[in-house]
Amino acid sequence: MHLFHISDINDNIAQLNIEEARHCVQVLRKRVGDSLDLVDGQGFFYKGEIIEISRKSCLVRILSKKEQLKHNPDLKIAIAPTKNIDRLEWFLEKATEIGIDEIVPILCTRSERKRIREDRLQKILLSAMKQSLKAYLPVLHELVDFKTFIQEDHPEKQKFIAYCNDDQLLHLKNVCKKGESCLILIGPEGDFTPEEIAIAKENGFRGISLGESRLRTETAGLLSCTIFNLVNI
Amino acid sequence: MHLFHISDINDNIAQLNIEEARHCVQVLRKRVGDSLDLVDGQGFFYKGEIIEISRKSCLVRILSKKEQLKHNPDLKIAIAPTKNIDRLEWFLEKATEIGIDEIVPILCTRSERKRIREDRLQKILLSAMKQSLKAYLPVLHELVDFKTFIQEDHPEKQKFIAYCNDDQLLHLKNVCKKGESCLILIGPEGDFTPEEIAIAKENGFRGISLGESRLRTETAGLLSCTIFNLVNI
Repeated sequence: MHLFHISDINDNIAQLNIEEARHCVQVLRKRVGDSLDLVDGQGFFYKGEIIEISRKSCLVRILSKKEQLKHNPDLKIAIAPTKNIDRLEWFLEKATEIGIDEIVPILCTRSERKRIREDRLQKILLSAMKQSLKAYLPVLHELVDFKTFIQEDHPEKQKFIAYCNDDQLLHLKNVCKKGESCLILIGPEGDFTPEEIAIAKENGFRGISLGESRLRTETAGLLSCTIFNLVNI
Repeated sequence: MHLFHISDINDNIAQLNIEEARHCVQVLRKRVGDSLDLVDGQGFFYKGEIIEISRKSCLVRILSKKEQLKHNPDLKIAIAPTKNIDRLEWFLEKATEIGIDEIVPILCTRSERKRIREDRLQKILLSAMKQSLKAYLPVLHELVDFKTFIQEDHPEKQKFIAYCNDDQLLHLKNVCKKGESCLILIGPEGDFTPEEIAIAKENGFRGISLGESRLRTETAGLLSCTIFNLVNI
């Protein structure tokens, strides 16, 4: 099943954006009267019927609406963008498939990458949501400085910071509580600095381990995302 | 720490293969007398000292040897290579980081990709092993037909086949037993055929679910690998 993304619905009419319209009309060769499966990224799937077509636009009448119930509490992961952006991009794709609500790219002391292209990352989230038949589009926040982010108010009930080389840390699997929203910090290649870890702890973040292996940033991010989802099954 | 891979040691002397030697001598500019960290992929790390160098060869004297103890029972995942080979490649990299012993590429009825380049995949496993500081190199088997593979004798204590669209299936997380070796089958895009699922069950494989999301082949493979490793913490 192919899903088309829509953002606004007015009087039961939705307009596909230019890219979705092009794919619908020029690639899939849909015609007026054809039915479409739609998703709004806000928790709803729709059945619709094409009522008007041009090369770059496609109007759809909404026929029915179905809500996808959200089982899990919210998961937000704040992660340092990887030097090789492909690695962050696959984290976004995989985390969307496995289950995540918000992603916050954070700029850390040891971050080598200081810029990201939100528009490109947005497209990856959108296509991963559609491919995995989810109705919720994860929220991608703007790149923010670690210290700024850490000192904001965070509504999550559980706040963790994952880092290496501390035998005293408990594994996320053993501390993450079922049914509680969660914010997890994942550092850059080279890990968080001791200062960053200290600031996080001062601000109520608990240090956790993700096991003995030395994991790449994106692997650590996906592993923590997976653990949260498994705990909440 | 950079690890160099060695395969054979004779009279305490090891020779780096041509690629490792080139990296050591031409990229890292190591000289005779420099010390190296080595790994054999069989469970051992070594400290060595360069005793002879040429542009394409590097001889190392082994000074010390340290075994990496293996905590987990064996995990073997048989997975259908993805149409887009990049997706199989990252599965190999990530599974190596998370923890896996053997990978068997399987040719299924719905497989779109019928060939793989073992040499290229081997390089990915090797670099992932070194990057994640593991001493065991996962074994990559040759591409094999699903029915042939399914009917072989398998020593694993637990044998699972993951597939979709069956509400009766229990989640791998709830059936995978700690401390028992495990073989998991992951199908191609479009999933296993009902016939393949039937044959697997006749041969002692238990059907399992990986959750409600529609997962890509490589995501399903990595998720099952992650669950096995979490169960065995």
